[in-house]
Amino acid sequence: MSKTQKFSIDATQEEDFPRWYKETITKSELLDYHDINGCYVLRPNGYFIWNTIKAYFDAKILAMGVEEAYFPMLVSKSALEREKDHLENFAPEVAWITECGGKPLENPVAIRPTSEAIIYPYFAKWIQSYRDLPLKVNQWCNILRWETTQPMPFIRGREFLWQEGHTAHFAREEADKEVLEILDHYAGVYEEVLAVPVVKGRKSIKETFAGADYTTTIEAFVPSSGRGIQAATSHSLGTNFSRMFGVGVEDPKNPGTQTPVFQNSWGLSTRSIGVCILVHSDNRGLVLPPKVAPVQVVIVPCGITKKTTAEDNTRVLEAASELEASLKARGIRAKSDLSQSVSPGCKFNHWEVRGVPLRVEVGPRDLQNGTLSLVWRANSTKKTVSLENAPETLASELDAIQAFMFTQAQSVRDARTVVVDSIEGLLKAVQQKQMAKASWCGEEACEDGIKQKTTEKDQDGTVTAMGAKSLCIPFKPNTPIQAQCIGCTSPAIAVGLFGRSY
Amino acid sequence: MSKTQKFSIDATQEEDFPRWYKETITKSELLDYHDINGCYVLRPNGYFIWNTIKAYFDAKILAMGVEEAYFPMLVSKSALEREKDHLENFAPEVAWITECGGKPLENPVAIRPTSEAIIYPYFAKWIQSYRDLPLKVNQWCNILRWETTQPMPFIRGREFLWQEGHTAHFAREEADKEVLEILDHYAGVYEEVLAVPVVKGRKSIKETFAGADYTTTIEAFVPSSGRGIQAATSHSLGTNFSRMFGVGVEDPKNPGTQTPVFQNSWGLSTRSIGVCILVHSDNRGLVLPPKVAPVQVVIVPCGITKKTTAEDNTRVLEAASELEASLKARGIRAKSDLSQSVSPGCKFNHWEVRGVPLRVEVGPRDLQNGTLSLVWRANSTKKTVSLENAPETLASELDAIQAFMFTQAQSVRDARTVVVDSIEGLLKAVQQKQMAKASWCGEEACEDGIKQKTTEKDQDGTVTAMGAKSLCIPFKPNTPIQAQCIGCTSPAIAVGLFGRSY
Repeated sequence: MSKTQKFSIDATQEEDFPRWYKETITKSELLDYHDINGCYVLRPNGYFIWNTIKAYFDAKILAMGVEEAYFPMLVSKSALEREKDHLENFAPEVAWITECGGKPLENPVAIRPTSEAIIYPYFAKWIQSYRDLPLKVNQWCNILRWETTQPMPFIRGREFLWQEGHTAHFAREEADKEVLEILDHYAGVYEEVLAVPVVKGRKSIKETFAGADYTTTIEAFVPSSGRGIQAATSHSLGTNFSRMFGVGVEDPKNPGTQTPVFQNSWGLSTRSIGVCILVHSDNRGLVLPPKVAPVQVVIVPCGITKKTTAEDNTRVLEAASELEASLKARGIRAKSDLSQSVSPGCKFNHWEVRGVPLRVEVGPRDLQNGTLSLVWRANSTKKTVSLENAPETLASELDAIQAFMFTQAQSVRDARTVVVDSIEGLLKAVQQKQMAKASWCGEEACEDGIKQKTTEKDQDGTVTAMGAKSLCIPFKPNTPIQAQCIGCTSPAIAVGLFGRSY
Repeated sequence: MSKTQKFSIDATQEEDFPRWYKETITKSELLDYHDINGCYVLRPNGYFIWNTIKAYFDAKILAMGVEEAYFPMLVSKSALEREKDHLENFAPEVAWITECGGKPLENPVAIRPTSEAIIYPYFAKWIQSYRDLPLKVNQWCNILRWETTQPMPFIRGREFLWQEGHTAHFAREEADKEVLEILDHYAGVYEEVLAVPVVKGRKSIKETFAGADYTTTIEAFVPSSGRGIQAATSHSLGTNFSRMFGVGVEDPKNPGTQTPVFQNSWGLSTRSIGVCILVHSDNRGLVLPPKVAPVQVVIVPCGITKKTTAEDNTRVLEAASELEASLKARGIRAKSDLSQSVSPGCKFNHWEVRGVPLRVEVGPRDLQNGTLSLVWRANSTKKTVSLENAPETLASELDAIQAFMFTQAQSVRDARTVVVDSIEGLLKAVQQKQMAKASWCGEEACEDGIKQKTTEKDQDGTVTAMGAKSLCIPFKPNTPIQAQCIGCTSPAIAVGLFGRSY
């Protein structure tokens, strides 16, 4: 145990959410705050989660033939200006380097807010014939977006880490297929690794990525705030960028003429860690799914008192060490906390704050009985299991915890997703911290209207609760489309998932 | 085979080195040039090498208890100014963001040229007692140094990738020990992975990292230029930074008083890829050691002519495919090049440019004889081996190529390292593209003098060849120290390794 043993979470989610969040992420040593607003340190505990996500996703895209590369962070003004819609969207957040070594730069350069404008000139150069297709590259890198809204660690930062995949295809069908394959892998990151259920769907026109034909998304639900949160997006860029950047090949049907390629881009960021924290954690601090927990099992010797013999005490400490070794040999990230100057209660608290999924208590009585006492972090379940075959038993427990956390989050999400048939119904739903499905026309103006009508203000006109937006148009709405749009008088064409959001 | 099959290397190292280098790195698709000077794209072939280095080094430092983290890229002016020597050295290369989203920033922020000034304020916060020591973190990230000298891809860029390790220890001895352990792992990256022999040593006073107590280094030799090149450095920072940044713990000998911790920092960059290219490649293009080659074995069907039967031809193509599959199953990165519209000669050329270590030729006669023909990229060795047990045989061949490449580079390096006892001797050595060992006083002024006296100029006073500098003071000079320094009249205290450099 380190110095931080004395720290526990003082704030509660209900009473002071911002403070609870800050305490939860800092006291668990996931993250620290930088002296530049919107920038954060990803500490080893936090980076461990990111590396786990990275390994999972890399294996998936490697199997799809995606290759890893690294493109420059700097982009010239001329390249950035090539795709107008895209630029217009990102320009307000772009950071410019204008001075180097004390001298002004003749041509200031921007730092990537995303890399379409950096990567596609290379696509134009590298793709000369259909034999060079498909081209699929991915990079893991840092991104800088000078947001002016209040930053929130992991969720919305100025600098953050992400992966961005960029691909080019000869046929639209092939590109379309890939958009969904990637979305499935993103859903895998959330559901299989982070134990966070997501809804797959398509973004509304208003929420589509600037320059894309369409954007697919996965959306998660944060119980404490009742808000939806965009978890990752996979875009079909169609030929919008390829026309602007001149990425084309000879059209086999019209020899001598060029045809633009079909492009996709897709990204997943360290926001995923934030979503995992928001979905699972509680007022005692972090709760981590076993797959991403730096420490999966903590072993705490218990029942050592003034009355127990020195021999008993030694046996307990030895048993804890041996158990740690046998769990590690089984590939379980185990840690025994043998300090004798700290009480078991303090240790429990210390490891709970850090979200360790499974606590094992070993005491003299356990050793006599050949048992171990287990406590699940996620729901405080207690169990007594046999010391024999402990590594296998505990591996199964970790699997069970992982499954439980997903199922629990899914139940909560489902119970808090309602179907509404009016704006009033939608407002009531979001006031009750729910997401709502509603039949909808899908139009931008209508979405603006819905947002406005669900925005709450006090008597002075100050906004007290943001309006609902369309999180996505779910691929599987599981509810029939009604005739009329809830937002306007037009016919409904889809079921939208609405909610307050991040 | 892609479109690039038509490309071969036109320039030679002897006649036009810069063009040869550019062709070698671009036609092998390792790298591409960006429209901002000093920035480059690391293409999948190049990134593969970096990932291999990363995996090797990560395993070594993980075993040392180093944890991975990520610190912000941006640094405030006040933090950057905390360590004066350090700032003075980096200030001329620091890039500043002064404008975001079209508006000037009130407090401009710098982009990391290295992260001591970013990381150590956290060390001060995280280290409260000796129980928090040692603290060992490493990050893999991008760095920006606005160099004004001519950039060279991989070797000297403005943006580059590296790892930077930062550690804090209670005792100087422990910190000193780690400096050398890391240096050993860096030597491992070069010698075991990249097949590049290095000399381990200590930097002269003049070449020591700004703010360090001492800098250890590994130095490689580039035969074509006859120059030495700094390959990686591991610094003992002593208490210089910890005093400036207030990183201390209570002194157990003087309770109530703080004692600063001992710090190290150590870095290895994508320059390592450049060194590997410079050391091994030849006028036909890239030569890659098997351990870092994206394709280790290329299989080319040969001997298919108008006279061979369709049945024979099919058998050859099938045998090539089967061989590819069996090699892959053995963990060998194999590729069969089955295109029938391209001649074997063109294929040989194509894969040679990319540095594929081993070519396998399969023809009808080979199949009749149950043999395969092998050609080593590194030295054009040809062999005929049995088709039976080909995976095992080829795995051994790859090991042999890796070993050969190291030994060959070592022989060349050793033959071109001489011992000199005068400035004239040193000048002659560097003119003959050699490195030279010389007894030396180690003083900064003397090093300046040596550099000046070995700089060559034409009649107009224009520098035609740079002076020699001390590459390092080798730990194992393998030659006795003479009484007098070669640069001045002072007594010699060490043997220095001198040479022209990058």
